[in-house]
Amino acid sequence: MRAQIVAKAMRRVVRELVLLAGLAAVSLQINSLVHADDRPNFVVIFADDLGYGDLGCFGHPTISTPELDRMALEGMRWTQFYSAAPVCTPSRAALLTGRLPMRSGMCSNVRRVLFPDSKGGLPASEVTLAEMLREAGYRTACVGKWHLGHLAQFLPTEHGFDQYFGIPYSNDMDRVADAPKGMEAIFNPKSEYFNVPLMRDQEIIQRPADQTTITKRYAEEAIKFIQAPAEKPFFLYLAHSMPHVPLFRSQEFAGHSQRGLFGDVVEELDWSVGQILQALRDSEHAKNTLVVFTSDNGPWLSQKQHGGSAGLLKEGKGTTWDGGMREPTIMWWPGHIEPTTTTALGSTMDLMATFAGYAHAQLPTDRVLDSIDLSPIIDGEELRPRQQLLYYRGYELMAVRLGPWKVHFQEQGSYGTLPKNLTKCEPPKLYHLERDPAERYNIAEDHPKIVQRALNLAQKHLSTTESAESQLEL
Amino acid sequence: MRAQIVAKAMRRVVRELVLLAGLAAVSLQINSLVHADDRPNFVVIFADDLGYGDLGCFGHPTISTPELDRMALEGMRWTQFYSAAPVCTPSRAALLTGRLPMRSGMCSNVRRVLFPDSKGGLPASEVTLAEMLREAGYRTACVGKWHLGHLAQFLPTEHGFDQYFGIPYSNDMDRVADAPKGMEAIFNPKSEYFNVPLMRDQEIIQRPADQTTITKRYAEEAIKFIQAPAEKPFFLYLAHSMPHVPLFRSQEFAGHSQRGLFGDVVEELDWSVGQILQALRDSEHAKNTLVVFTSDNGPWLSQKQHGGSAGLLKEGKGTTWDGGMREPTIMWWPGHIEPTTTTALGSTMDLMATFAGYAHAQLPTDRVLDSIDLSPIIDGEELRPRQQLLYYRGYELMAVRLGPWKVHFQEQGSYGTLPKNLTKCEPPKLYHLERDPAERYNIAEDHPKIVQRALNLAQKHLSTTESAESQLEL
Repeated sequence: MRAQIVAKAMRRVVRELVLLAGLAAVSLQINSLVHADDRPNFVVIFADDLGYGDLGCFGHPTISTPELDRMALEGMRWTQFYSAAPVCTPSRAALLTGRLPMRSGMCSNVRRVLFPDSKGGLPASEVTLAEMLREAGYRTACVGKWHLGHLAQFLPTEHGFDQYFGIPYSNDMDRVADAPKGMEAIFNPKSEYFNVPLMRDQEIIQRPADQTTITKRYAEEAIKFIQAPAEKPFFLYLAHSMPHVPLFRSQEFAGHSQRGLFGDVVEELDWSVGQILQALRDSEHAKNTLVVFTSDNGPWLSQKQHGGSAGLLKEGKGTTWDGGMREPTIMWWPGHIEPTTTTALGSTMDLMATFAGYAHAQLPTDRVLDSIDLSPIIDGEELRPRQQLLYYRGYELMAVRLGPWKVHFQEQGSYGTLPKNLTKCEPPKLYHLERDPAERYNIAEDHPKIVQRALNLAQKHLSTTESAESQLEL
Repeated sequence: MRAQIVAKAMRRVVRELVLLAGLAAVSLQINSLVHADDRPNFVVIFADDLGYGDLGCFGHPTISTPELDRMALEGMRWTQFYSAAPVCTPSRAALLTGRLPMRSGMCSNVRRVLFPDSKGGLPASEVTLAEMLREAGYRTACVGKWHLGHLAQFLPTEHGFDQYFGIPYSNDMDRVADAPKGMEAIFNPKSEYFNVPLMRDQEIIQRPADQTTITKRYAEEAIKFIQAPAEKPFFLYLAHSMPHVPLFRSQEFAGHSQRGLFGDVVEELDWSVGQILQALRDSEHAKNTLVVFTSDNGPWLSQKQHGGSAGLLKEGKGTTWDGGMREPTIMWWPGHIEPTTTTALGSTMDLMATFAGYAHAQLPTDRVLDSIDLSPIIDGEELRPRQQLLYYRGYELMAVRLGPWKVHFQEQGSYGTLPKNLTKCEPPKLYHLERDPAERYNIAEDHPKIVQRALNLAQKHLSTTESAESQLEL
């Protein structure tokens, strides 16, 4: 608040100076500086395969996350915040474009994500969060996992990021020929089993990437970017490679957690978040930075103890039950966000419209966006701008959420759980997610009107929505 | 700390006065007053059928519990604290005696709990927490659900409590003949469907008890006891009837929670905890009172949306998977307990030895106790006095926990889930509860020594332990 009052006063002084001197050019210049100071920085910290139940502040009994717990206490904990897809590539595409993955072709019913032999990637025609904010005068950086195309034309630096440092796809890809077969290489991993590249901008600087230090190096890179002297506000997209299998943590975190290796990895992630928030405090950016922590999809349950937990939610990664898509989410903006927990609905796709609002940036107007400005919630205005969610798996609309209700039209288990194949729910199933978060009690018979409303919404959506050709099948 | 220093100084002054005047009688009297001030009060708030995942601070997305969350932030949140049985009567007997229910006969393989037609109850030969503390100079009160025998000779006032106010058994008992049949009376409950008595001391003062105001009235009664002017320290055992079905809340909490009726009930409970902690603060007892909040067993899952959630834990009430016996537990003692989360093991049976230590009370020495003094944890000494747990269902030893490991010897589902009947695990199943809290991955084959150690422990325990005749089958 004080910063806003000072900024207002400065603007008034500037206006008076302008009147006195009649120097329009100077006025513009000073005004834009004042504006730049006024607009918040944005940091998105995106975990990989972290489940709804994997943080202390979301109820895990033996994973200790003091930094994220503190972030939640000082900020806003979201208990009903969703990714836009239950797997990696489409989830990331949606966050960065504010659009459902089927609109950009960043999904598939055949190949769930991009692989090292994929020829596709995020189309140049898509407008990313980074492009939008760079256009509005922000400096931008991508640190971490990309997974939206590793060929030169698809890399972060082609999509609005001034700089990139990270592994361009999943850390379990590119397994070398003489690595152990099957799950052995995952459950007893070594960096050299996975010939994944580490890149700076467009160059490969290490291959295989030393994954044991990857979380730490991502954090260092992020902090360097935050601390760089600059007049412009910034947007940092820090997409951790962890805790996706194979799990790696630095020496300092070996045996750190009671939860075993998975816990060690999450606890190093927690430490790294603490480092970043501290860097923001130290550089006096904290009061002018909105930090969003969330995850790309639910826990990868088939990885057994190497996968996370969705807490009380049903199922995990790959599925459209809530365990696959509801994410442990925290927003932090000292002095702006009132410490609280919100049960409002939100989606990673909403960051686009939300950031645009705070940054006075121009959202693309020539295409459909699925992004809703969440600033009323962040600003504490007791409004609930998002009232519905679409649960997609590949190109299949599986379920919709309407306020507290969720209607399943189709079901499919993750990787081997039942039903194995895509199965129509005839009739659709209805759950009250706020009263029955574990999706246990189908109450469709009691509420035919709600089911009909959901069917109408789905029908209208499907009949007015165009799917782009899959980039994942190229 | 300051109180201790003052008390020490006072004791020194008293000693000097005594030396000067040689008045031994006066010395004794003053000394005992000083001692009384020194010893903490104890408040146990015991919820009924509240699950591990049903509080905000234990990860529930839509139940709002600001008072318990604050209690946890100011106090010690226990993530591995257990009741001694997965159902009501044995769990309560164990808490109040510091002994496994089979030692007192307060369990059964046939009738899980006491019913209105039961003739048995907690034997007079048992020494309760209340008897022990009253003997040591405490005033004592029981408010709420008793369920350790409703015949005159078994009531709280016969077991060490100076006073009693509450419903002596479960609030779903004594259904009247013309109440709706089946689950209808539970899912659309009215107080008049259940002819349960409300008692003051040994008298029935209302029948049927008006359950809509029961949580509020319990809290009022508790606060009255706390605020009573007295020289003695106190022990309050406040055993709520809620959130056991049928669910009732007062008018102010109708529609209070997004979680529906169950949430309303938990949120009223939360409010009532806030009232009690505030009463402790207002009466300046707070710094000298250890408050323990926990639950008698896991959520009653067969009650559907009227039952709670065990969060990420497996199963619920009635079973010996962790969802049946691990409880959302918070200890609070401002100025004494350092705010923290502990993963140390604890049991409701441990309150006996723990309170005895702080109260300089005499534990019974003529019998086996299963109670371990947890004060090293509460005092922040980084010790872990409890290293094992026994999971009993009735008279059956089902599983043991050894540090992080849990070994199942037998399994049985709750009320209809599989396996329906008691089934031997041959060979026993092993889970690492800290790495696999949901008991998903049986790793017995990888750790035969741990399994053997558990078998040895069970064998030794069973061969040296005498079971008392069941009081529940009388």
